[in-house]
Amino acid sequence: MRLITSLDDVHSLTLDLRRRGTTVSFVPTMGALHEGHLSLVRRAKSEGGALVVSIFVNPTQFGPSEDYSRYPRDLERDCEALARFEPDAIFAPGPADMYPDGFDTHIEPGNVAAKFEGALRPGHFRGVATVVVKLLNLVAPDVAYFGQKDFQQAAVLRRMIDDFNIGTRLMICPTVREHDGLALSSRNAYLSTEDRLAAPVLYRSLNRARELFHAGETRADVLAAAMRTILEAAPRAKVDYAAVVRPDTLEPAAQAAAGCVALVASRVGPARLIDNLILGPPGAPDEELIELAFEAPATSGGHTRP
Amino acid sequence: MRLITSLDDVHSLTLDLRRRGTTVSFVPTMGALHEGHLSLVRRAKSEGGALVVSIFVNPTQFGPSEDYSRYPRDLERDCEALARFEPDAIFAPGPADMYPDGFDTHIEPGNVAAKFEGALRPGHFRGVATVVVKLLNLVAPDVAYFGQKDFQQAAVLRRMIDDFNIGTRLMICPTVREHDGLALSSRNAYLSTEDRLAAPVLYRSLNRARELFHAGETRADVLAAAMRTILEAAPRAKVDYAAVVRPDTLEPAAQAAAGCVALVASRVGPARLIDNLILGPPGAPDEELIELAFEAPATSGGHTRP
Repeated sequence: MRLITSLDDVHSLTLDLRRRGTTVSFVPTMGALHEGHLSLVRRAKSEGGALVVSIFVNPTQFGPSEDYSRYPRDLERDCEALARFEPDAIFAPGPADMYPDGFDTHIEPGNVAAKFEGALRPGHFRGVATVVVKLLNLVAPDVAYFGQKDFQQAAVLRRMIDDFNIGTRLMICPTVREHDGLALSSRNAYLSTEDRLAAPVLYRSLNRARELFHAGETRADVLAAAMRTILEAAPRAKVDYAAVVRPDTLEPAAQAAAGCVALVASRVGPARLIDNLILGPPGAPDEELIELAFEAPATSGGHTRP
Repeated sequence: MRLITSLDDVHSLTLDLRRRGTTVSFVPTMGALHEGHLSLVRRAKSEGGALVVSIFVNPTQFGPSEDYSRYPRDLERDCEALARFEPDAIFAPGPADMYPDGFDTHIEPGNVAAKFEGALRPGHFRGVATVVVKLLNLVAPDVAYFGQKDFQQAAVLRRMIDDFNIGTRLMICPTVREHDGLALSSRNAYLSTEDRLAAPVLYRSLNRARELFHAGETRADVLAAAMRTILEAAPRAKVDYAAVVRPDTLEPAAQAAAGCVALVASRVGPARLIDNLILGPPGAPDEELIELAFEAPATSGGHTRP
C-alpha cells in the first residue's frame, strides 16, 4: 500500500498499471472513512484490478459558512481502515496541489444540480464536479464508485460523465445504515446523544413513503407530504426538503413510478443530514433499485478507457 | 482514410490505436479548411503516430446573433484537402451526436476568458472549452494542435488543460498568412474585394507594435495606442480592441517584455477579424516566440496519456 500525495506520482502509477493492461477501480472520498466508504472499497476491490482510493477534503465544494475547516480529518486512521483491502495506492493530495495559484477553470453542472442540495448549498456541485473531473483525469479509472446516499451527487456526476464523454463507468453502491436506519455519514460525528436519537427520523419518513407507494399511492405530492409530516413531528428536526422526483433530472414526478427517488434533507441539531430511498417493487434489493434509477441509457454514450 | 461520424466509432478507433501502443495526434477544426489548418495537420502528421482530424462546427461557441448558420461548410472539399496527409480518421459528428437531448454540463473558463473575445462574444469560450473537453475525452490524444491566430483560445485551453489535469499536450502552431500579411481565417470568405484590400491593416498594426518594441519601446499603452492609430486610419475598419498583454492571463502588461502578446480585433466590412503577434527578440522565428509565450511551467502539471 502506497500513500501518494503528488499528482505526478499518482498519474505515473495509474499510467503504469494501464500500460500493463490492468483495469483501475477508483473510490474518491473525503476521508473520515466509515463503513459506507468501506463498502465502496470492498466492491471496488472485488473487481480484481488495481484499486486506488483518494482522500481529499475538497475545499471548493464547501460554502463559506460551511464546515470545511472542522470537517473530520484523520489520515492515519483512514489508512489503517484501508490497509486490509490492500489498495495499490491511497492518493491524498494537499489543497495547494489540487488548486495551485492561478487555478481558474470550473465545471458548471446544469439543472440537475440547481435544486435541493444545489439550491441550499450554492456552488457545492460545481466544486464536486470540478474535483471529480480532476481526479478522473489523474487516476483514469475504468470504474469510479460513489454512494447512493449522495443521490443528487450521483445524478450530477452521471450527467457530467455522459455530457463530457468521460471514459469512466460510474458505479453507485447502496447506502450503509446504522441498526436504527440512520445513513452512515462522516457528519454524524456532529450529532449530540439527543440528536443521534432523533436522527433516524429521516429514514423513517422515507420508509413511510415507500410503504405508501407499495400500497398503491403514486401521487408524488401525497408521498412528499407524508414524509414531511413525520419529519416535522420530530422535536429536533428542521426540514429542508422532502420530495419524490425522477432519478435522472430530479424533476418533480407527478406520478411516482419504480425508479423514482424519495429525497429528504433536514437539520437535526447542529448537523445537516440527507437521505433517500429509491421506489420499486416490494422486497427488491438495493442493487436492483439502483439499476432501476440509473438504467436509462446514457444519451451521449459511456466510453471505456484505453 | 476513414470518415467517422459516430462518437462510439471514433472512441473505439483511438482505443484500439492506443492499445497497440500508437500515439495519437489530434487536430480539431470547424472545417472550411485553409492552409492554416493544413499547417497544423502537417505538423501533427510529422509526429509519426496516428492522426485524427475533427470537423465540427460547434454551435455552443456561437452567440445567438453570430454566423453559426452561415459559417462555411464543405465536408467533401475538406476531406479532399486532408487526403494527402492520410489521416487515420476524419471525425465529423453531427450536432445531435455531440449535444443530445438533455445535455446540460459546461466548462466555465475563468478570467483569461472574460476579456477581449470573451467580453465581445459572451459564452464563446465556454462553448469552445466544453467541446474541446468532449473531443479530448473521445479521441484521447497525446497532443492536440491549435493555431496561434486564436491566441486567447490557446490561453483558455492551456489554463483548462492545466486546471483539469488533462493528459493531452497542447501544441500551438504559427499563424499562416496571405502574401500581404492577412492571417488565414475561414471568415475571410466574408470579405468583399474592397474589404479584402483593407484587411491587412491588422497585421500592419501588429508589426508597428513589434517594430516599436524592437526599438526599445516597452510601455504597453504606447504600443497599443500605436496599433489603434493605424487601425483607425483604415477606412473600413472598426476597432474592437488593441492591447499588449501577458500571454498566460492576458492581463495588462504595464511593461511589455519578450513573450508578451499584441492582440488586435477589428471589424472590416461584414467580417470580424482578429490577429496577434508575440513580442520577442528581432528575427526570432515564430516557433521560438510561441515557446516564449507558453513557456511558463504548467502550475498543476501536464500529464501524459496512458
